[in-house]
Amino acid sequence: MCRRHEIVGVVTEVGSNVSKYKVGDRVGMGYCAMTCQECDSCKGGIDGCTTRRTRCFNDIDVDGTITRGGFSNLMQADQRYVVKIPDSLPSDLAAPLLCAGITVYTPMIRHGMNQPGKRLGVIGLGGVGHMAVKFGKAFGIHVTVFSTSVSKKEEALGVLGADAFVVSKDEEAMKALSNTFDFFINAASAEIPLDPYLRALKPHGVLVLVGAARELKFCPVNLFDMKYITGSSVGGMKLMQKMLDFCGEKGVVPMIETVDIQYVNKAIERMMGNDVHYRFVVNIEKSLKPE
Amino acid sequence: MCRRHEIVGVVTEVGSNVSKYKVGDRVGMGYCAMTCQECDSCKGGIDGCTTRRTRCFNDIDVDGTITRGGFSNLMQADQRYVVKIPDSLPSDLAAPLLCAGITVYTPMIRHGMNQPGKRLGVIGLGGVGHMAVKFGKAFGIHVTVFSTSVSKKEEALGVLGADAFVVSKDEEAMKALSNTFDFFINAASAEIPLDPYLRALKPHGVLVLVGAARELKFCPVNLFDMKYITGSSVGGMKLMQKMLDFCGEKGVVPMIETVDIQYVNKAIERMMGNDVHYRFVVNIEKSLKPE
Repeated sequence: MCRRHEIVGVVTEVGSNVSKYKVGDRVGMGYCAMTCQECDSCKGGIDGCTTRRTRCFNDIDVDGTITRGGFSNLMQADQRYVVKIPDSLPSDLAAPLLCAGITVYTPMIRHGMNQPGKRLGVIGLGGVGHMAVKFGKAFGIHVTVFSTSVSKKEEALGVLGADAFVVSKDEEAMKALSNTFDFFINAASAEIPLDPYLRALKPHGVLVLVGAARELKFCPVNLFDMKYITGSSVGGMKLMQKMLDFCGEKGVVPMIETVDIQYVNKAIERMMGNDVHYRFVVNIEKSLKPE
Repeated sequence: MCRRHEIVGVVTEVGSNVSKYKVGDRVGMGYCAMTCQECDSCKGGIDGCTTRRTRCFNDIDVDGTITRGGFSNLMQADQRYVVKIPDSLPSDLAAPLLCAGITVYTPMIRHGMNQPGKRLGVIGLGGVGHMAVKFGKAFGIHVTVFSTSVSKKEEALGVLGADAFVVSKDEEAMKALSNTFDFFINAASAEIPLDPYLRALKPHGVLVLVGAARELKFCPVNLFDMKYITGSSVGGMKLMQKMLDFCGEKGVVPMIETVDIQYVNKAIERMMGNDVHYRFVVNIEKSLKPE
């Protein structure tokens, strides 16, 4: 079960130095296939290698070959970059946690968004944003979804269980939220104005960017009350395992549509048009079976 | 001795409820004359009132009168917003600490820039920026000054004692600094590009904005290694006293030019043209004496 870089499978063979996994284990792998092992971040175990991160797809592996990601029937991986999938998590529902899940889980844990009483705003309701809502509710905090369109209101409140919904283009509604949020997670890739959200943060509040907009603008005065803008991309292996165990225990899973590999071009076309709730998962095993 | 909102004087009279100061004490006052005393920030003692901050000039005081700042021969203040000037600090050198000084001291303390081994970059060498260099060196950390022009190099290294100087327009020099700084303090008011500085931050590094640019732009990907942008404006009363005591002990003082009130219009004209090293201080007492 996979997306290109959110991969779940079963161990079929292990090398002589492999101690963490055995044949038959159900395991997963995310965006990162290897890091340099030499920089301060790698040595410090903070999983923030800035020197050399090998992607699990379209990158050059330690042996010089090309990494091929999850659209394959077999792959080889270093045990340090592999996680155990809890028995209670089906493979197709576990796969998107390995990128979309960890991308929001990491900054949520780092910034204490799992502490009761906190108020979280989620900007952008897509593959990553809907996981932020799900984790927020699993952590027991108050979650507000911000969207440019009222059309996502029912989905946000009724389906995902958010506590509130705000149309971000409504200037009066945004102004009324001044100094009321502890955190925002911006999962939108669009170049949205940050100032309305910065004003809505409490002093010491944090706006985390996980979407890859090209450029964002803000007025520094809106940060003067010790407010923060930060960014986060995927996450490290220790948190990945911790997240999977949490999801297995609490039943935190993404909304997905499972397809065969034969459908993948159509799936990508639909994804580019935002026509997916919220992740396509490719069932490689089923795809390769004769009809 | 004063700027408009960095004021030092001698207590001439105290109210019946004043316990902290007595007639004859040399005291100071900064930007803030009063806060709401009711919000979470005021109650929590974090000095970050978001409800009502009364400026010490051109604002409406608790009694309905206009606050008049430091260009006066007398002023009335609440003891909670007054600090004691250490005996070792001359009044003219103490005054600019009450705004320029606290503006950089506050985020430096908050973000641990007083820890040996840290590397600080100071962007913009004016009234505020030169105090960041002075505090950085007093804290024993490595300080690099960034300026758009090489003309400030001798001043930065020879006069202020910075460890390094970089012309920020030199793209190659900026690229060579990737992931090497723990902190930046941006004291520039211009709309500078943030991305070269964000790339130069280490993971978990912090860029603090203390200058009031209208709008700044950045690419979110440059924050993905858990890097932070934050802002800070002046600071609270506890830190203000702590800073003054530190400055008195370590001899950390601004570079100033002391003038009479009769010169103030010319001083403002020169200030607008950046023709001041680095703060004008008005000697009100001397100004009012007959020649």
